[in-house]
Amino acid sequence: MNINWAERMSCMENPAVKAILAITQRSDVISFAGGLPSARSFPVEGLAAAFATVLNEQGASALQYGISEGYEPLRDWVADRVGRQGIRCTAANIIIGNGSQQIIDLIARTMLDPGDYVALENPTYLSAIQIFKGAQARFIPIPLDQEGMRVDMLAEQIKKVRPKFIYVNPTFQNPTGVTMTVERRRQLAQLAAEYEIPVIEDNPYGELRYSGDSLPAVKSFPGGDWVIYVGTVSKIVAPGLRVGWAIASETIIDKLTTAKQLTDVLTNSLTQRALHRFVTDQDLDQHIAMIVKQYRQQRDVMLAAMEEHFPSSVTWTVPDGGMFIWVTLPAIINTNDLLPAAIEEEKVAYVPGTPFHADDSGHNTMRLNFSNSTPDLIRTGVARLGALLKRYLK
Amino acid sequence: MNINWAERMSCMENPAVKAILAITQRSDVISFAGGLPSARSFPVEGLAAAFATVLNEQGASALQYGISEGYEPLRDWVADRVGRQGIRCTAANIIIGNGSQQIIDLIARTMLDPGDYVALENPTYLSAIQIFKGAQARFIPIPLDQEGMRVDMLAEQIKKVRPKFIYVNPTFQNPTGVTMTVERRRQLAQLAAEYEIPVIEDNPYGELRYSGDSLPAVKSFPGGDWVIYVGTVSKIVAPGLRVGWAIASETIIDKLTTAKQLTDVLTNSLTQRALHRFVTDQDLDQHIAMIVKQYRQQRDVMLAAMEEHFPSSVTWTVPDGGMFIWVTLPAIINTNDLLPAAIEEEKVAYVPGTPFHADDSGHNTMRLNFSNSTPDLIRTGVARLGALLKRYLK
Repeated sequence: MNINWAERMSCMENPAVKAILAITQRSDVISFAGGLPSARSFPVEGLAAAFATVLNEQGASALQYGISEGYEPLRDWVADRVGRQGIRCTAANIIIGNGSQQIIDLIARTMLDPGDYVALENPTYLSAIQIFKGAQARFIPIPLDQEGMRVDMLAEQIKKVRPKFIYVNPTFQNPTGVTMTVERRRQLAQLAAEYEIPVIEDNPYGELRYSGDSLPAVKSFPGGDWVIYVGTVSKIVAPGLRVGWAIASETIIDKLTTAKQLTDVLTNSLTQRALHRFVTDQDLDQHIAMIVKQYRQQRDVMLAAMEEHFPSSVTWTVPDGGMFIWVTLPAIINTNDLLPAAIEEEKVAYVPGTPFHADDSGHNTMRLNFSNSTPDLIRTGVARLGALLKRYLK
Repeated sequence: MNINWAERMSCMENPAVKAILAITQRSDVISFAGGLPSARSFPVEGLAAAFATVLNEQGASALQYGISEGYEPLRDWVADRVGRQGIRCTAANIIIGNGSQQIIDLIARTMLDPGDYVALENPTYLSAIQIFKGAQARFIPIPLDQEGMRVDMLAEQIKKVRPKFIYVNPTFQNPTGVTMTVERRRQLAQLAAEYEIPVIEDNPYGELRYSGDSLPAVKSFPGGDWVIYVGTVSKIVAPGLRVGWAIASETIIDKLTTAKQLTDVLTNSLTQRALHRFVTDQDLDQHIAMIVKQYRQQRDVMLAAMEEHFPSSVTWTVPDGGMFIWVTLPAIINTNDLLPAAIEEEKVAYVPGTPFHADDSGHNTMRLNFSNSTPDLIRTGVARLGALLKRYLK
């Protein structure tokens, strides 16, 4: 069967993600790959109560089609919740999608023509790179340092080549764990408004803070009208519910709604209502505090084990939150080549750094996830990885 | 705020659908517009039991990420179910999406480049037209008669211009209610294989038959490897669950999975598992028999009321199933222009026929939905519409 696929399909292959998902299924491997939240953190009983209540009280209306923007009480809740990050908005500024990934995809579809440029942190979220590649975009990769994206370098770059939008993951970034400082957030919002270039502020991990003080969203600063804030419940309630959102000007929400309507009409009605019930009836902050306590311990165990077992030539980030630690090895190591050895010789897995780089750099980097392993597995897995690195760095 | 949107957005506006959704919210209008199933048909208690059972028995695993193809036991069930239509397949031939509309969108994304041709029935499902327009496709519209798409005319056309695929809704077609005959199904599958052009067989209504005998799927005939069958539970369980599927060769499923993975990773895990529980624990055939009994009565009431109230110059289809009756008025009437009068003067709504036509023809046609109104409302609404038509046809 020989089918003439669309051109975008040649840009869309994502073997890295497929390999990660395959590894996470193998029970004999300790996997620090993947980006799964801990299943122990899911509020099973609270959600069971919420689904039962919604079906009991709202009946059939919870199972019917609804508007493409999403269930209004849930959007009201989101609008209220993001007030904590300094964002002022109403339900009219919000659209609900199937997880935040669909939101990123809808933004790409509404804004990108083939050949358009996207500016982004280098490294950044690998599926965002893949989505933009699937939209046949080109990249303006901007380095990060300990204060987040180098906004000064972004400013230089966009004078030369104008991107359609700037994609950032400013809080507990995936994959580096780095958080953008207040000053850079302010500069980024200002830059967006000055050059009239939308910024996508992707914030899936922001509520998972283990140290340091909360920061206001990029969208909360002057110029924030140009920022599309992207949120999700995947890391604070459960990813299998597939609920995320965009917060933006009504002009932008209107376009995203048109695209959403044609893409899949609406996000699961029952789930949107049950989620609204859950966040209304249960104490979400208490639930998040429980997750934070668990993940903080896991982060600390991983960092301590890395200190103990990793060779001195290896460096890594110390994230204040989120789910990932970013490791940089001496340049002689290629983490893509090392992965089969890690799995076969030591039964431990990580994600090589290259697919997080829009320019395919980062051959000597890797991402470690600490949210989805117990402290014991983290200790064992990091010791195995340390033994491997010592062998290959001899 | 001036944003430079992607070119596809200028092809994607869908005011017809927005207007329909707005009308369906007005409580003083009897709406035969929209394509909503009756909320009375939703199995609220059965679904409540299924969600409770899944969360109780499977716990957190029902809330985690899963594979992009969808929950395997649900795919096994789909594979078994479509055996009734003569389709032989396994879970490896199936991908689950957020309703069948996402499946159509994924097919468009994987196959269509701007300027590509799509062959389709004229008229056909308006959102399919809008999805293909959003993919910047061009159209090869093929007329229907009482036996479905004129496959002979399709054969002539594809000799001249080769489409990327052929989209058909062969059973109780939206909007006409027409069902393609066995002979034409056979010819269509044969044509697909002969010319190596995929056929999308969209079948959302096939299980809602009120008269006549069930027909085998186009995919069941020789050449059916080239057919992508698209199904959904929206009309037999509930649309708010957003569960649909494609059945196709593994080559095609693999590409759709790549696109799905980047679009939104996976379809709601909990819902897929609860739906599987529902169809396993409950008697779906008995449930569908209840829906069929209800809709058959509504169809019959609408047809009888049309006989009684519509002017003799008006003709319409008599569907054996589905949710729609298609009305053709004398050419002097433009149903787009008539709609405001219908709503204001008679408080009754329909969908004008033009947006169902890829070539913008059909100004004197309209679609009436009978699934979402009670017999009393159908009698009153059809009488109102009849009065309106008599006034405007004087």
